[in-house]
Amino acid sequence: MRYAVLGTGVVGQTVAAKLASLGHEVVVGTRDPKATLARTEPDGYGNPPFAHWLAAHEQVRLETFADAAAWAETVVNTTSGAATLQALEAAGTANLAGKVLIDIANPLDFSQGMPPSLNPVNTDSLGEQVQRAFPEAKVVKTLNTMNCQIMVDPARVPGEHTVFVSGDDTVAKKAVTDLLVSFGWPANSVLDLGDISTARGTEMLLPIWLRLWGALGHADFNFHIQGARTGA
Amino acid sequence: MRYAVLGTGVVGQTVAAKLASLGHEVVVGTRDPKATLARTEPDGYGNPPFAHWLAAHEQVRLETFADAAAWAETVVNTTSGAATLQALEAAGTANLAGKVLIDIANPLDFSQGMPPSLNPVNTDSLGEQVQRAFPEAKVVKTLNTMNCQIMVDPARVPGEHTVFVSGDDTVAKKAVTDLLVSFGWPANSVLDLGDISTARGTEMLLPIWLRLWGALGHADFNFHIQGARTGA
Repeated sequence: MRYAVLGTGVVGQTVAAKLASLGHEVVVGTRDPKATLARTEPDGYGNPPFAHWLAAHEQVRLETFADAAAWAETVVNTTSGAATLQALEAAGTANLAGKVLIDIANPLDFSQGMPPSLNPVNTDSLGEQVQRAFPEAKVVKTLNTMNCQIMVDPARVPGEHTVFVSGDDTVAKKAVTDLLVSFGWPANSVLDLGDISTARGTEMLLPIWLRLWGALGHADFNFHIQGARTGA
Repeated sequence: MRYAVLGTGVVGQTVAAKLASLGHEVVVGTRDPKATLARTEPDGYGNPPFAHWLAAHEQVRLETFADAAAWAETVVNTTSGAATLQALEAAGTANLAGKVLIDIANPLDFSQGMPPSLNPVNTDSLGEQVQRAFPEAKVVKTLNTMNCQIMVDPARVPGEHTVFVSGDDTVAKKAVTDLLVSFGWPANSVLDLGDISTARGTEMLLPIWLRLWGALGHADFNFHIQGARTGA
């Protein structure tokens, strides 16, 4: 499968590396590939510049958002929430139409102080905004409720835990579920919440996630819905 | 211990019955006891009128919010989120001062359609509003992230699962933790998130809780933070 991973941050790197390790073809999309490759400073979180990562992953290419999306069969959005709609505009409506668009972004809003709040929130979600802006894309919100290391290596957290999927297209959610299983998620750990409006619920897990990160002092935790299958 | 349980709904009934069963003295508080007892219709959720419940729990008394709070050593708020601040005003600032105030309410907002949204949300919480309005009360937000049957009988949900506490007063949180343990919660299932502003995080679990209720078709589930104690 040909995957475009939009976003060059640590989430994009982690997901792109996992996809490539599974034998998929992967192109990372960015606004300006030359500018991305020219950066020699660590990012705001202290991670090495993207060019270092790319040099270590020679099977992955870096292209513009539009070229990556046009080439791909499935698109993964790992850009920051505040940049998501612009990045997808740059990717291009026609290049997203008919494709599964896996949305991992969270609409973190740093303008109201720390810890970040959310925008949109409560009566809307980023997942819904994306689906409304690109109605021909098959948006599936998933993986946005955990640290990126856990996304691609769920066994980092011992015991059962949950990954949520939200989306309007049942076939797309099935394809994403299969991808999650290939990442190491047990099939019964994937919990389909319903249509894309349920992304409000998963995005609104971020405030408690951030507080748990602070209270626990590490990010190797995840939500588990205990009792989800008591009727099974 | 003398507990005032403010609110006559199913949450109040369930918590009051548990407290009484543990040997505590319990008074349920309501705006107008005569009006509460005069109701002969089921409530909006189809539950029997409060008088039926009270007749079956003769060790529990019904009094005004103010009389209940004045008498109590610890106050439990189980009113609806929209009614909470008015109910606590009626209980009276002086009657709450210096006492542990356990806040179980969620600020569900039904004015924006179904499922309900939250108000306040994101940059504020009901728990914080209560603490600001009654600065001499020791507000501890807890138990608001699950069905009321589970609050007082955590073994209903098999396996480990989590109850969160948020509050500014460490001694009050310790007292509430001891109460939770007496309800059947294992001590290591009680997760202290930090100060009362962390109530934003637990209140913002309600949107996914409501969607899970819909997706699973039952309410006998709870959140578990898997990996919370990997360092232990």
